[in-house]
Amino acid sequence: MKLGLCQLPVTASLEQNFKAMDSMVSDAAAKGCELVCLPEMWACPYDNAEFPKYAEPQGGPTWQVLRRAAMEQHIWLVGGSVPEREGDRLYNTSYVFSPEGEQVAKHRKTHLFDIDVPGGVRFMESDVFTPGESYTLFDTPFGKIGVVICFDIRFAELFRILSLEGAKLILVPGAFNMTTGPAHWELSLRMRAVDNQCFTAGCAPARDSEASYTSWGHTMVCDPWGTVLDTLDEKPGLLVQDLDMAYADRIRDQIPILKNRRTDLYQLNYHK
Amino acid sequence: MKLGLCQLPVTASLEQNFKAMDSMVSDAAAKGCELVCLPEMWACPYDNAEFPKYAEPQGGPTWQVLRRAAMEQHIWLVGGSVPEREGDRLYNTSYVFSPEGEQVAKHRKTHLFDIDVPGGVRFMESDVFTPGESYTLFDTPFGKIGVVICFDIRFAELFRILSLEGAKLILVPGAFNMTTGPAHWELSLRMRAVDNQCFTAGCAPARDSEASYTSWGHTMVCDPWGTVLDTLDEKPGLLVQDLDMAYADRIRDQIPILKNRRTDLYQLNYHK
Repeated sequence: MKLGLCQLPVTASLEQNFKAMDSMVSDAAAKGCELVCLPEMWACPYDNAEFPKYAEPQGGPTWQVLRRAAMEQHIWLVGGSVPEREGDRLYNTSYVFSPEGEQVAKHRKTHLFDIDVPGGVRFMESDVFTPGESYTLFDTPFGKIGVVICFDIRFAELFRILSLEGAKLILVPGAFNMTTGPAHWELSLRMRAVDNQCFTAGCAPARDSEASYTSWGHTMVCDPWGTVLDTLDEKPGLLVQDLDMAYADRIRDQIPILKNRRTDLYQLNYHK
Repeated sequence: MKLGLCQLPVTASLEQNFKAMDSMVSDAAAKGCELVCLPEMWACPYDNAEFPKYAEPQGGPTWQVLRRAAMEQHIWLVGGSVPEREGDRLYNTSYVFSPEGEQVAKHRKTHLFDIDVPGGVRFMESDVFTPGESYTLFDTPFGKIGVVICFDIRFAELFRILSLEGAKLILVPGAFNMTTGPAHWELSLRMRAVDNQCFTAGCAPARDSEASYTSWGHTMVCDPWGTVLDTLDEKPGLLVQDLDMAYADRIRDQIPILKNRRTDLYQLNYHK
């Protein structure tokens, strides 16, 4: 399976962001990608003051643009994330479309990004967003694929649920920053892959040093042994990677982590 | 709090292993260490054929040597691990002694090391050992401290339980090998520290390239931000590290991972 990860540049112009997305997604499709993932908040600045202005209900213009891109390029498209409005509430939402343009999944970030590092970054996403209420998986011909958004990656439980439910690849649209990025982005993607014996891929916006929130970039894909298969730097770019999805099964046979959990001693309970 | 990690050389001679232990532990105490940890299987070769020969019941000669070392040096001593015999059963067991020589905890490895990497390492610990049935914590003036043994580190659930139960430091007597060591030892110690916002320390036997099972070494201590504070190479040696235990609380305030778990969506159940 050929995976494409689009490290898009993000501007204040919705139209310009759509153009950049269309161009990179069609480039990915031209290179043979069957599944393409966009970054967290690829269509608007990552800023609490901006999210309400850009928020749209499901089915709105941004949703339409994503759906059309999936159909036109005949790819599976994980639409990074965008601010979703439903009634009075806003969500940080990832829409997933099949090559036929069907919305096959929708993940609302379940763990909001609230952080306050002295001398580093302060950001309180929960001032604006409501958290989602479930984990998210979708079926493809390549296997089951999980989706989480950014800060979700910090919660081992969510990844465990996804792997127990059959995910062979977990996609992470995410925008780590200049404090947490160098410290924890690669570490987290590698270790979640090792723990859950699946592929992981993080897809970040390109860095804009003028922005109020500066993305670390470093879109990256890891295999189930924890090896970084490829990574970008901080600039806009497309990462294309062949994934041998059966490798996850071979690793699971070699080091039986998922099988040898002591479920007689501990149980992770969740709504199926 | 000053922590000492003893990367001991291991031979087939129990007496020689005792001598090396006594010498390094007294060196650690002389350098001001208040808590000292030994490696997994520091008193006998890491070999399924050898474990039954060296196994002793609790209170046996090796237990006595450990207890005496703790009392004589007036330190908290986490006795790495040794093969324990109880009736017909063998366990991979870590005894923990207070400076007064009281056995304050005993961890039996709960996840046995069964691995089969083609072209790499095959080892089936469950051919010989019975797994333990609980997690292990003990109270000290420096805070609560958790103990797991080697392959236990691969199970995020066990570390989560220890941190939820209050561990500020988790000690990992462990003997990763030349396949899993370079791939996963540092990665696992760093990520468990980040996930659980606690210190982690892995203590390994020194490498013996003639042994049937070759230890990776690299005894290491990580802080709750995932920074490697210090590491040894593969040779025998003592690592001494000051730990500011309150740093774990500061990190927990900055990035509220433990606090912001979605326990409305998932619950880790275990016997308290």
